[in-house]
Amino acid sequence: MSEDPLKICIAVHSRANYGRIKSVMEAVRAHPELELQLIVGASALLDRFGNAIDQIRADGFEPDATVYYMLEGGTPVTMAKSTGMGIINMSTILENLDPDIVLTVADRFETMSTAVTTSYMNIPLAHTQGGEVTGSIDESVRHAITKLAHVHFPATAQAAENVVRMGEDPDTVHCTGCPAIDAVADIDLSLPHDIFERYGGVGADIDPSEPYLVVVQHPVTTEHKKGREQIKETLEAVTNINMQTIWLWPNIDAGTDAVSEGLRSYREKKENSKIRFYKNFSVEDYGRIIYNTKCIIGNSSSAIREGSFFGTPAVNIGTRQQGREKANNVINVDYEANKIELAIKNQLEHGRYKSVKLYGDGNAGQKIAERLATEDITIQKKLCY
Amino acid sequence: MSEDPLKICIAVHSRANYGRIKSVMEAVRAHPELELQLIVGASALLDRFGNAIDQIRADGFEPDATVYYMLEGGTPVTMAKSTGMGIINMSTILENLDPDIVLTVADRFETMSTAVTTSYMNIPLAHTQGGEVTGSIDESVRHAITKLAHVHFPATAQAAENVVRMGEDPDTVHCTGCPAIDAVADIDLSLPHDIFERYGGVGADIDPSEPYLVVVQHPVTTEHKKGREQIKETLEAVTNINMQTIWLWPNIDAGTDAVSEGLRSYREKKENSKIRFYKNFSVEDYGRIIYNTKCIIGNSSSAIREGSFFGTPAVNIGTRQQGREKANNVINVDYEANKIELAIKNQLEHGRYKSVKLYGDGNAGQKIAERLATEDITIQKKLCY
Amino acid sequence: MSEDPLKICIAVHSRANYGRIKSVMEAVRAHPELELQLIVGASALLDRFGNAIDQIRADGFEPDATVYYMLEGGTPVTMAKSTGMGIINMSTILENLDPDIVLTVADRFETMSTAVTTSYMNIPLAHTQGGEVTGSIDESVRHAITKLAHVHFPATAQAAENVVRMGEDPDTVHCTGCPAIDAVADIDLSLPHDIFERYGGVGADIDPSEPYLVVVQHPVTTEHKKGREQIKETLEAVTNINMQTIWLWPNIDAGTDAVSEGLRSYREKKENSKIRFYKNFSVEDYGRIIYNTKCIIGNSSSAIREGSFFGTPAVNIGTRQQGREKANNVINVDYEANKIELAIKNQLEHGRYKSVKLYGDGNAGQKIAERLATEDITIQKKLCY
Amino acid sequence: MSEDPLKICIAVHSRANYGRIKSVMEAVRAHPELELQLIVGASALLDRFGNAIDQIRADGFEPDATVYYMLEGGTPVTMAKSTGMGIINMSTILENLDPDIVLTVADRFETMSTAVTTSYMNIPLAHTQGGEVTGSIDESVRHAITKLAHVHFPATAQAAENVVRMGEDPDTVHCTGCPAIDAVADIDLSLPHDIFERYGGVGADIDPSEPYLVVVQHPVTTEHKKGREQIKETLEAVTNINMQTIWLWPNIDAGTDAVSEGLRSYREKKENSKIRFYKNFSVEDYGRIIYNTKCIIGNSSSAIREGSFFGTPAVNIGTRQQGREKANNVINVDYEANKIELAIKNQLEHGRYKSVKLYGDGNAGQKIAERLATEDITIQKKLCY
Repeated sequence: MSEDPLKICIAVHSRANYGRIKSVMEAVRAHPELELQLIVGASALLDRFGNAIDQIRADGFEPDATVYYMLEGGTPVTMAKSTGMGIINMSTILENLDPDIVLTVADRFETMSTAVTTSYMNIPLAHTQGGEVTGSIDESVRHAITKLAHVHFPATAQAAENVVRMGEDPDTVHCTGCPAIDAVADIDLSLPHDIFERYGGVGADIDPSEPYLVVVQHPVTTEHKKGREQIKETLEAVTNINMQTIWLWPNIDAGTDAVSEGLRSYREKKENSKIRFYKNFSVEDYGRIIYNTKCIIGNSSSAIREGSFFGTPAVNIGTRQQGREKANNVINVDYEANKIELAIKNQLEHGRYKSVKLYGDGNAGQKIAERLATEDITIQKKLCY
Repeated sequence: MSEDPLKICIAVHSRANYGRIKSVMEAVRAHPELELQLIVGASALLDRFGNAIDQIRADGFEPDATVYYMLEGGTPVTMAKSTGMGIINMSTILENLDPDIVLTVADRFETMSTAVTTSYMNIPLAHTQGGEVTGSIDESVRHAITKLAHVHFPATAQAAENVVRMGEDPDTVHCTGCPAIDAVADIDLSLPHDIFERYGGVGADIDPSEPYLVVVQHPVTTEHKKGREQIKETLEAVTNINMQTIWLWPNIDAGTDAVSEGLRSYREKKENSKIRFYKNFSVEDYGRIIYNTKCIIGNSSSAIREGSFFGTPAVNIGTRQQGREKANNVINVDYEANKIELAIKNQLEHGRYKSVKLYGDGNAGQKIAERLATEDITIQKKLCY
Repeated sequence: MSEDPLKICIAVHSRANYGRIKSVMEAVRAHPELELQLIVGASALLDRFGNAIDQIRADGFEPDATVYYMLEGGTPVTMAKSTGMGIINMSTILENLDPDIVLTVADRFETMSTAVTTSYMNIPLAHTQGGEVTGSIDESVRHAITKLAHVHFPATAQAAENVVRMGEDPDTVHCTGCPAIDAVADIDLSLPHDIFERYGGVGADIDPSEPYLVVVQHPVTTEHKKGREQIKETLEAVTNINMQTIWLWPNIDAGTDAVSEGLRSYREKKENSKIRFYKNFSVEDYGRIIYNTKCIIGNSSSAIREGSFFGTPAVNIGTRQQGREKANNVINVDYEANKIELAIKNQLEHGRYKSVKLYGDGNAGQKIAERLATEDITIQKKLCY
Repeated sequence: MSEDPLKICIAVHSRANYGRIKSVMEAVRAHPELELQLIVGASALLDRFGNAIDQIRADGFEPDATVYYMLEGGTPVTMAKSTGMGIINMSTILENLDPDIVLTVADRFETMSTAVTTSYMNIPLAHTQGGEVTGSIDESVRHAITKLAHVHFPATAQAAENVVRMGEDPDTVHCTGCPAIDAVADIDLSLPHDIFERYGGVGADIDPSEPYLVVVQHPVTTEHKKGREQIKETLEAVTNINMQTIWLWPNIDAGTDAVSEGLRSYREKKENSKIRFYKNFSVEDYGRIIYNTKCIIGNSSSAIREGSFFGTPAVNIGTRQQGREKANNVINVDYEANKIELAIKNQLEHGRYKSVKLYGDGNAGQKIAERLATEDITIQKKLCY
């Protein structure tokens, strides 16, 4: 047929978002029957959170629209308000872009905004990373979005089964693996010699030819008042290990200011720390960094997702990833400095694990684009029991 | 214990909302360990939609806060924007009221606003009418809210089972029956002689001692462009029956203007119609009216819910109530004038059905208040498979 | 020069707005150094307020963006919230359209939204109809917008003087006449025989070959609680005159529902009224209708603006136009039925007045476009005393 | 009279705001015919901007409502959106507080939000600091707010004259002096020995018994892209002076992130700098600090306002305070390091100036409260020429 291509709208709303959808964006752009509509918004536009839009543009994607809607505050009430602002602004943009399908990622409040907007506007909604189990408000939101979505692209077999058990029509559930794996599956994983200079950052100098740790620890929204004490435990453990360390600033959830404040206050006091703080890396360089690290510490899903694929030793702290399917590269510990330190030491001793393809084999983007081009979507959903 | 009472916040956002939660408001207000915080907002404040706030005040409830957030338009995009505005404004109000639990009703976009706000603010969310199955966007939204809620008060055993199957912890699911039944279970159901004058309305005079029909037909959001032609079929059928008719203006979903326009245009042309149009009744008078009608027609859930309890003959049109559990008082028909007419005739011939307690026995409010006072709620949810 | 054309962004937000800026839109579109960016939003998209977008499209203008942001309610608080929603949504749109100049009209809350957004975004703001004096909140808002605007196109010499006296740099103030006059200055003013059928409307049949009245009476925001009683006086006077009457539904300011309710309630009761109610006319047909009417009654500025140009007898009621420069075609009266009736009778007796070019000679659009193409604008304003 | 007290609502939206209205809050609270309603919102709630709410509570004021509405970004578009969010949220709060008069301060976007909301809600608006002349978007906004306000409390005779020349009714214009002066007029101005420890801060230790500089340099919204290079010039000049320095983080206008980034980047590089960075001081301690400094540098109005009262030598940089009435304690310079350095040296040599009561004598709060209690306000404004 010589029909108009289907307009697939993807909204990238944070630096983490981007790595998890980039391969789909590429596959949609390359597909002859699909047209990519790209919205870049929220923390992806903010310097404080690493300006992901610069990476996106550097990768050759020009947004069809940009949109600011994040509130200052990093509190539960500002997360709620940001979601409301997201809906209002996404509505204006979607009305004018008029897409055929909107594809949204995972479980953050920006995703909630996109999902609610799309649902009420009667636009078919596709969703990646549904059916996974974790802690934090993300757990509720992820499953709520599943109940709003018309097509599901879960990353694992277990997640796909969860989506079906929640009452989704099995014909709409396609286990594709996670696009986050695609982005790092086929690249040269060696560390460029200038990789740590290239991204600026603040703190100690890092030598890529020497062993280093990576820490990514986000606030847990359901425990947002404990952010500062939680981060202190990690800081203490990492300081005791005394190895050069790449530390990423946390994302923009409730509690982010407490975590950042904890980090800043540490920086003031510790003059000869071995830590360097960064806001952002390119998707591929982030892959290289966590491939080559001796251990990734904190509560980022990348330790579990890309970590299992790479076999990177990981120490997962606290409740944020509770319940998420993990390969054996991960040791779970509580928010306690000495336990964290011990777990890191164990991982340093163990070294790299065998690669496990739990979250996909690197072709998710391709599979998703193909499905979007052919899926026959009914806008009226129905609980499927 | 001599502790402070638990603050239970209930938001009433439309006339329909109110009837479905009134008995809970009464039970919470009466409970020694609970304190009612009442928010009245959205279409419940609007004259166009029957000014439910006047009924609420007449019933002795003084709101702790009122809040406007509905957009003009009655289109999918304005429903989305109203949801966003609802979140922003509800956030401001909830921050200042600081409730211990928020209780929300069913599946409308106002409910979605409340649910999203409450979730992100880490306030426990209780939900009534979850687990039911219908058409319209309400179907998606209802289940999404279930995934955000911490305590569930489904109305039927089937609905409760659905909520558990979706992965909710069975300990948080309490089948209480529907509070909508409470409001009409124990009242004198005879029609006051001046009932139809008291509420104003426009159109033909209605004699309560003569047989009459009731029509309530809302737009179906997922078919919102067909609102006008759908209402035409019903108008034709009802005109042909030629019995005096109480017609309620539709609610504020996408498509509402098309439905209203269809009704207005009909009113212009038919000078000697037997129809009278109303915006609102008190909860109890609405109960009396649908108890005494010869047949209730359209797609309101009250035909199914209170209708089964009363045994009122009902003709349910189209997809809006598709899948909802029904007693045998309901005949389902498509949007076709002659089929609607035939079904009405069959119901007129049949007369009242036997009462069926499918949606509860009239004690839901009591049970819900009791549960709220004692439930031990964990803010961190987890998929329960 | 072969530079890119200057992008001139014009937002049309209501039916009244459109007639007052249409000639500028045409002149900008036709100008080789200018490019028109058109936003259509607010009540211009709403069926309840006459769907001005259909007229705009019929005139060959395709919007670059549409935007819903009006709240339901017609109360002071919803006017405020609509202004806020306007700012948020206009910000998203202006960020993506990236205009060189924004041109805004007069004094309504939609204009306030546009002016605040544009100012904070450091985009030069041009303003028409500044410096006029009236009642209602429009009076405050109009002058506030003058203080935000960088280029001024007042309609009259007196208005231009007022703008300068308020401290604006005289070099930025250009008295061009009012674009509302342009739209009707050079057209055939005879009434098409089917003009009153073409626009639907509800109520009595109107014969264009017979004498008729026109009534346009908007709520006065600063007296919004009196809307209903004010409209009753006018209805009584017009009923007593007993001449066929074209009545336009009011615009969307605070109090609009009270006025509409007053009109609807009248319609219910008066079966053999000679009034027909309309939502909208094309700019040119509206011009023809008020040119040919025996008298225009109410508080619309068109009675004063186009009215002076046509010499149409006008009865101006109440405070809304208080202080606005008027030609001798206008009789001012208070909200009292018998005074209104008397004034109408006097005007019917008097007949057409001499045309007065108080609000321009029909070339405002041309002059404004020319200025926009050449004006050298400094973004930093300074009180000019 | 035994009437209810007049409810005077004051919204404090930033740390700077607070010092400029505190004496009015005290006077309103103390007045027998007035009742203070306090809203604390925007950056006054944010840790990043010094958590002014803690100071407010420490001073014994408990807010009637708090409200978050600032967007992340520090760009022109986020300033616009914050204004819109401010209006929406202030509307909800004002609807529920139902004040008799709202009093608003100066010229920031939070003030614009308050002024627009109040105007459309038909609530009388009182305004302080109107009629002054400066650079930045504040210049436009200040005069726009004057055109919305019903009662004016300008700080200087010149400002009062400007307000009247803009067309305000002279009977509504009361030259009271600036409440910012009140807060520091009668206090013990000696520096507590631990004053610089008490507020935390980051950077060099400061000895209050040794000479020190103060720097406060905000972004200029109309030059927001130059923020970083502008701050570099000041940093260079101050570094060359080599005196211990108190530096306040900038406020939240467009360009704030660039300024902060410039400061952070400097902090990374200069290990033995003599600068210490602070987010906030109490109103009185800030007074003490700028009374005792050898020179205040930057573009804060406090250098001009309180500075003239104290006779503190001041170096005012760039356009932000352009046109504001200044006493002879101020030297104006451009954004050039060597000129700034030279001006500081001249001021260090000169030492304290004679006190000038240009911005009032310390009784503004008293006078304003008295006026509010007795003023007869007409809600309908009219251009007064």
